[in-house]
Amino acid sequence: MGPKAKKAKVDSGASAPVDGSGEFFPGISAIQYKPDAPATDTLCYKHYNAKEVVHGRTMEEWLRFSVVYWHTFRGTGLDPFGSATLKRPWEDGTDSMEMAKKRLRVAFEFFTKLGVKYWTFHDRDIAPEGATIEESNKNLDEISDLALQLQKETGVKLLWATSNLFSHPRYMNGAGTNPDLHAYAYAGAQVKKCLEIAKKLGAENFVFWGGREGYQSLLNTDVHAELSHMANFFKMALAYKKKIGFTGQFLIEPKAKEPTKHQYDYDAMTVIAFLKTFGLDKDFKINVEPNHTTLAGHPYEHCIVMASEFGFLGSIDANTGSPDCGWDTDQFPMDVKNATMVMRTVIKQGGIQPGGLNFDCKVRRESTDPEDMFIAHIGAMDTLARGLRNAAKIAEEGHLDKLVQERYKTFKVGLGAKVEKGAATFEELEEYVKKNGNPEMISGKQEHCEAMFNHYV
Amino acid sequence: MGPKAKKAKVDSGASAPVDGSGEFFPGISAIQYKPDAPATDTLCYKHYNAKEVVHGRTMEEWLRFSVVYWHTFRGTGLDPFGSATLKRPWEDGTDSMEMAKKRLRVAFEFFTKLGVKYWTFHDRDIAPEGATIEESNKNLDEISDLALQLQKETGVKLLWATSNLFSHPRYMNGAGTNPDLHAYAYAGAQVKKCLEIAKKLGAENFVFWGGREGYQSLLNTDVHAELSHMANFFKMALAYKKKIGFTGQFLIEPKAKEPTKHQYDYDAMTVIAFLKTFGLDKDFKINVEPNHTTLAGHPYEHCIVMASEFGFLGSIDANTGSPDCGWDTDQFPMDVKNATMVMRTVIKQGGIQPGGLNFDCKVRRESTDPEDMFIAHIGAMDTLARGLRNAAKIAEEGHLDKLVQERYKTFKVGLGAKVEKGAATFEELEEYVKKNGNPEMISGKQEHCEAMFNHYV
Amino acid sequence: MGPKAKKAKVDSGASAPVDGSGEFFPGISAIQYKPDAPATDTLCYKHYNAKEVVHGRTMEEWLRFSVVYWHTFRGTGLDPFGSATLKRPWEDGTDSMEMAKKRLRVAFEFFTKLGVKYWTFHDRDIAPEGATIEESNKNLDEISDLALQLQKETGVKLLWATSNLFSHPRYMNGAGTNPDLHAYAYAGAQVKKCLEIAKKLGAENFVFWGGREGYQSLLNTDVHAELSHMANFFKMALAYKKKIGFTGQFLIEPKAKEPTKHQYDYDAMTVIAFLKTFGLDKDFKINVEPNHTTLAGHPYEHCIVMASEFGFLGSIDANTGSPDCGWDTDQFPMDVKNATMVMRTVIKQGGIQPGGLNFDCKVRRESTDPEDMFIAHIGAMDTLARGLRNAAKIAEEGHLDKLVQERYKTFKVGLGAKVEKGAATFEELEEYVKKNGNPEMISGKQEHCEAMFNHYV
Amino acid sequence: MGPKAKKAKVDSGASAPVDGSGEFFPGISAIQYKPDAPATDTLCYKHYNAKEVVHGRTMEEWLRFSVVYWHTFRGTGLDPFGSATLKRPWEDGTDSMEMAKKRLRVAFEFFTKLGVKYWTFHDRDIAPEGATIEESNKNLDEISDLALQLQKETGVKLLWATSNLFSHPRYMNGAGTNPDLHAYAYAGAQVKKCLEIAKKLGAENFVFWGGREGYQSLLNTDVHAELSHMANFFKMALAYKKKIGFTGQFLIEPKAKEPTKHQYDYDAMTVIAFLKTFGLDKDFKINVEPNHTTLAGHPYEHCIVMASEFGFLGSIDANTGSPDCGWDTDQFPMDVKNATMVMRTVIKQGGIQPGGLNFDCKVRRESTDPEDMFIAHIGAMDTLARGLRNAAKIAEEGHLDKLVQERYKTFKVGLGAKVEKGAATFEELEEYVKKNGNPEMISGKQEHCEAMFNHYV
Repeated sequence: MGPKAKKAKVDSGASAPVDGSGEFFPGISAIQYKPDAPATDTLCYKHYNAKEVVHGRTMEEWLRFSVVYWHTFRGTGLDPFGSATLKRPWEDGTDSMEMAKKRLRVAFEFFTKLGVKYWTFHDRDIAPEGATIEESNKNLDEISDLALQLQKETGVKLLWATSNLFSHPRYMNGAGTNPDLHAYAYAGAQVKKCLEIAKKLGAENFVFWGGREGYQSLLNTDVHAELSHMANFFKMALAYKKKIGFTGQFLIEPKAKEPTKHQYDYDAMTVIAFLKTFGLDKDFKINVEPNHTTLAGHPYEHCIVMASEFGFLGSIDANTGSPDCGWDTDQFPMDVKNATMVMRTVIKQGGIQPGGLNFDCKVRRESTDPEDMFIAHIGAMDTLARGLRNAAKIAEEGHLDKLVQERYKTFKVGLGAKVEKGAATFEELEEYVKKNGNPEMISGKQEHCEAMFNHYV
Repeated sequence: MGPKAKKAKVDSGASAPVDGSGEFFPGISAIQYKPDAPATDTLCYKHYNAKEVVHGRTMEEWLRFSVVYWHTFRGTGLDPFGSATLKRPWEDGTDSMEMAKKRLRVAFEFFTKLGVKYWTFHDRDIAPEGATIEESNKNLDEISDLALQLQKETGVKLLWATSNLFSHPRYMNGAGTNPDLHAYAYAGAQVKKCLEIAKKLGAENFVFWGGREGYQSLLNTDVHAELSHMANFFKMALAYKKKIGFTGQFLIEPKAKEPTKHQYDYDAMTVIAFLKTFGLDKDFKINVEPNHTTLAGHPYEHCIVMASEFGFLGSIDANTGSPDCGWDTDQFPMDVKNATMVMRTVIKQGGIQPGGLNFDCKVRRESTDPEDMFIAHIGAMDTLARGLRNAAKIAEEGHLDKLVQERYKTFKVGLGAKVEKGAATFEELEEYVKKNGNPEMISGKQEHCEAMFNHYV
Repeated sequence: MGPKAKKAKVDSGASAPVDGSGEFFPGISAIQYKPDAPATDTLCYKHYNAKEVVHGRTMEEWLRFSVVYWHTFRGTGLDPFGSATLKRPWEDGTDSMEMAKKRLRVAFEFFTKLGVKYWTFHDRDIAPEGATIEESNKNLDEISDLALQLQKETGVKLLWATSNLFSHPRYMNGAGTNPDLHAYAYAGAQVKKCLEIAKKLGAENFVFWGGREGYQSLLNTDVHAELSHMANFFKMALAYKKKIGFTGQFLIEPKAKEPTKHQYDYDAMTVIAFLKTFGLDKDFKINVEPNHTTLAGHPYEHCIVMASEFGFLGSIDANTGSPDCGWDTDQFPMDVKNATMVMRTVIKQGGIQPGGLNFDCKVRRESTDPEDMFIAHIGAMDTLARGLRNAAKIAEEGHLDKLVQERYKTFKVGLGAKVEKGAATFEELEEYVKKNGNPEMISGKQEHCEAMFNHYV
Repeated sequence: MGPKAKKAKVDSGASAPVDGSGEFFPGISAIQYKPDAPATDTLCYKHYNAKEVVHGRTMEEWLRFSVVYWHTFRGTGLDPFGSATLKRPWEDGTDSMEMAKKRLRVAFEFFTKLGVKYWTFHDRDIAPEGATIEESNKNLDEISDLALQLQKETGVKLLWATSNLFSHPRYMNGAGTNPDLHAYAYAGAQVKKCLEIAKKLGAENFVFWGGREGYQSLLNTDVHAELSHMANFFKMALAYKKKIGFTGQFLIEPKAKEPTKHQYDYDAMTVIAFLKTFGLDKDFKINVEPNHTTLAGHPYEHCIVMASEFGFLGSIDANTGSPDCGWDTDQFPMDVKNATMVMRTVIKQGGIQPGGLNFDCKVRRESTDPEDMFIAHIGAMDTLARGLRNAAKIAEEGHLDKLVQERYKTFKVGLGAKVEKGAATFEELEEYVKKNGNPEMISGKQEHCEAMFNHYV
């Protein structure tokens, strides 16, 4: 799989007919499961076997993989210091409706060949922004007709839709937190339409990521006003969701910072505080992205675990950052240890449905071959499949779980049980100590747990 | 104020009579306000003038300074790589009751000479831990008798007390989150006693800092069990507080990490999520320490602002870290800009009472002269006094506040006002956009605000 | 200075004649020094007074301010999550030569009204990239003719030029470290031309910033090959510089990371190691950017101090980041304390010439008014002017310097002096200890120094 | 391996005879290689098989494992927020010479049962500090006699010795950088003695870690003076080394910060800059600790790779931090991916000898069972053994190396080869571009490499 070989595989993509009757990735067939393929073959699954049953469900059911439209089909490799590098053979350089339709066919060919069952998009990814909101909405109507048709033809479903409320200059000062009513109203109008499209396409969830909802400077910001406005924005969204009968789960996606200096939805716990303060906690769950978790200073799996423990884990944006880089690198997750921690939580809470594992990742801007799109997704899917296999084995052998249960066993009987029920008093605790003296030291056995965990990964 | 000069000033401290009739800082008189003193004189106030009225209150009333017992009288300069450097002339090398009493007299001489009206302590700071809990409690009774007497004699009051639930090995796996009931019970018994002492000494607040309440590894931890146990611990504390008629405000102090890999009370918003989840939000406020805020990845003033905006700001541990260091350095706050941001929030919410500005700071372990204790506090008090003066001027001139009001003015009329009331709908927002088209770009004027702010600092 | 007021001031810019006979900032006159202006007036200097003599030189001579062409005239507010927000009235939306010339006139009007004496640019900032290198070079020739004319007319000089070797996709894998000779050669050809232009315009320095010289992954990188190639690239640049008689100082600008995961020129000391390893240390100095310094985990002033102490400080990119953000925010420096530390080093080494203080800063993307360009520079210039005044006073009063000298005085006599000369032995040190016993503890007086420093800021 | 089970295994340690004829870890035999043991058995090797030949050498020869005396036998679990937790049955609570001897026997029993061939120590770890330097030296003489005897009896060798120049209060302001000659001289006397002991015990290396060589504040520091003094300190060490005929390799161990705010030996490249500036680069190599590397903001393996590429990699302190924690956690390395990267570099440079992989790690302070000492080392040794096996396979299959060679092949012929030789000019590069036009885009294939790498781990 050298730099030369791959060129041959995809270079005829540009000539595929616009109606999609041809292929855009002509050198690449449906990706196969080949557990014994050599290291150099990175265009096959070595661990992910969609229909294989692991721990009571197929891998496909546990993992619910989804491909994102933005990075994978609209990403150009642009970064703050350089211009576009990813020049796809099917792109004609325009943002026309024709191009939007052709691109959608490319995407569905990709989903199908890769073998994933879900996709996700922002409204502005799939259809061009028009000169007016009416025109933008019309574009969305037309494109979503095609999307619906392609979904039916392929069986690929919409994991979630979301509104892009951060890229257009009108949102530079925020959307649901914009100090100007006019921009705020625009955001509302945009989400209204996107909810309709989500319903039309059977989205199983709907995500809010507040990319510009935060502050650049506290000097010019009224935090309380902004948060109240945002809460009321969400209430309007709930009302409209109910009105049109959209049944997808609402999800908020936390991020610590970037693009703003500080985002309001810093991490899972901050979102929970917000939801509870404004009475929204019954209607929203959380979409956790580990790269955002690490930007908030937590370990990779932290927000997934915390959201799950508090009953708010709705979906996962399966990606990774570089712990030594302080910005969102949105890399494909390739670390089996992290994947095992994630899948352990998913198994513990009985699955991630109706959410999924959504690849909010981008190929590096230097990975300019179209085949790199496949290689990256396959590598990540294999990594998570290994994570699932490991987590399933850990759950089935039960050694780690048993060790944890043992640690807390004193809370299952006597005074401990009373504490758990909330029925104990300080007087009883004091009496217990006066009777039993000083507690013994009990090793936390961390290295033992780490070594056991390594046994599985 | 060279290294030589100071030696003469304090070296006779060791010979001061144990009954406190003599002086422990014989070369240092009550610190005076000398606004025109030269740079080299760091043993006088140049900005803090306790009784001067600024913005409607005396500086003393706004700032409510407090000295901590732990760093200032129990700190030895020990760090993970070196042994004690701070060898105080009054210390006899023992942890005896005699020494505890003498040390208390040293502290009250220090408070008095410095001119602060509040102090704070952990139970184990002021009285030695005994072989049994009964003995520890007896020690506390005896020492708190002396503390009460010294409080009366000097007029110095107790801003808050707290239990040290993290230093003793029995708490290595947590206190209110310890997997072992026995250690948990010990923590309860200890807080019970400390609440009694707090009441006896008229503490205006009571703080909980969960130094070991967190995880070192998720592999051996049941997060949900630990948090439930902690919530029930707080409920027992509330019940006991009510029972004994203690009226101080309960405060939780967030910290992101250190000593544990990850503390449950990561930051202000995380604490709010916890309090609301377990129905504790009516009974607790937050004690924010900026050094902890920056360890969580936020700007210096962030948690102070957020806690205040959400109605939870109860008190402030006035210190600072080094933004380039990833651990708690607990330095004295010496940055006037930061101090101005803090005091601006305090003024906005009408003061910090019954909380205060508590110097949870330590002199560097290389600052081995007793006079360094004074110099450090004076420098910090002057810094915060400058912050107060600046913030008062900003409030009085009103330019920054007016600029912010202007930014949000569209939410005060028409559809904007309806949004604020929570009475608007997406349909109305859409209609507004269809009628008014695209919003205009409105500059956020950040650099203008920064330049205005610099005018005051 | 409300959002409304400013609009009136600049909206006629678009109609200024293309030949530059008119004004592009019609509402803004040459910025005046008005030390007593109110907080709201941010379009005048309150501290910077160009011709005023401070510590033996004019402020202008000490500070040597420079405006950058890239952020200030080519920046659009684009960020990884949003499109351009800064829509300048003079821009016609093209990258034509006509536009390049008009823009150059805008810039020189800006330099002149602001009152700075220096500017800096990348080759591709001022002239459009052509279809071939010949065309790009021709464009540069033509535009630099105009630049030369404008320099002569205004007296504004070129502090430094640099080649943009990171934005074009051809450099995605590096320039001087690109694994492909072809891209490497292109970089060489580009620098060759830029050196000629620098000579023509009398550049006092020439900067190399290796934006893509680093690695994204060690898996596909031959570090040794890349660094050797880069060293040879610099040797060719030196040879060509000599050949054409260009006399500007060569400077390398370190940066830790971003856009690459890890840049080879991590910080000042890393650059020194590289230069010494490849025998380049006589011919290069360092251009330090504090925002890059903090991204490497150092305190703000660290690389400025270290480069100066090792004799490598050549110039300064005067900007700041947000310590809580892990990417390059390139903000205008507004912190007087930091500015004082920087200017203290500049004074200590006798000035920064032939380098300067170059504003490698950008207005926030929300600061969309053209007047914000002025306000931001003025705010930063005032901040550095305050830093200069403070540092000059510190130097003149001499208290801090004297304290430092006192600390090291034992190395000025006897065995200490022998150590400084490199003439002592371990045997002599041992003998000294055996004779003199244990050393005394000497306080580092850090808080005393901080309080003294605060006296001046 | 539950918390209960292990207690039985070690509780008789305290009664082992002081002469070492008995056992201190009576329940634990020599650790065996049992590749098929279950997850719960963490007291056997599953991957490390000392005598097995991998890639041309035994595992033992490649890995050269070493146990540290400080953490493993002097660590108490003390941290900045809590007192000692690790109460070893053999400790009698004193720092007596008797205890020092007994402890040394414990250590050699540990080394032997674990099956490692090397140990390392600080002078003050093995022998108590005396009231005078003469007494300290005498203690060292006596203890090193026993150490020599135990080395001979067991075949365990000394990988390196080092002087502790940071724990004693006399070094609070530095050792080789102390502003006071007296403290500086003490450090020299101490290193002098330690070099003699190192020679006596046949140390293969000698390490300098400058724990207090840095600054807490630039306000009171003369950086240039301190670095010159440090360089002269090293020159005296070299002279004395030569004089006594000690042949071990001198190593400097970089660390970014902690305990000081900023250490001079920030990272590998900073050390190289220092060594070259002061003419020490021929006589020193670098001992890289990955936990220190990540504290400097680099990826885990960065300094190992850079030191190796520049010819300075002398030894490795095999440990890990938590990327989300900003301080030195000194955890046992348990990540196979990181281990593979490390061993790949070791294989590439032909082995790490005369250095080794030294476990500068400590069991968590909650891991209070003596068996945890074994479990932690075994877990880390297995992790590095897996890393070795993986790296060997990568090297033998050669796919990754070949891909890298392919990337740089244009520098092996024609103009590229001339560039490599340093014989090319900018004129030739320009000519090449004018002839060949724009370079093609060549994918960096990062995800392909990552997927290939994952194939092996």
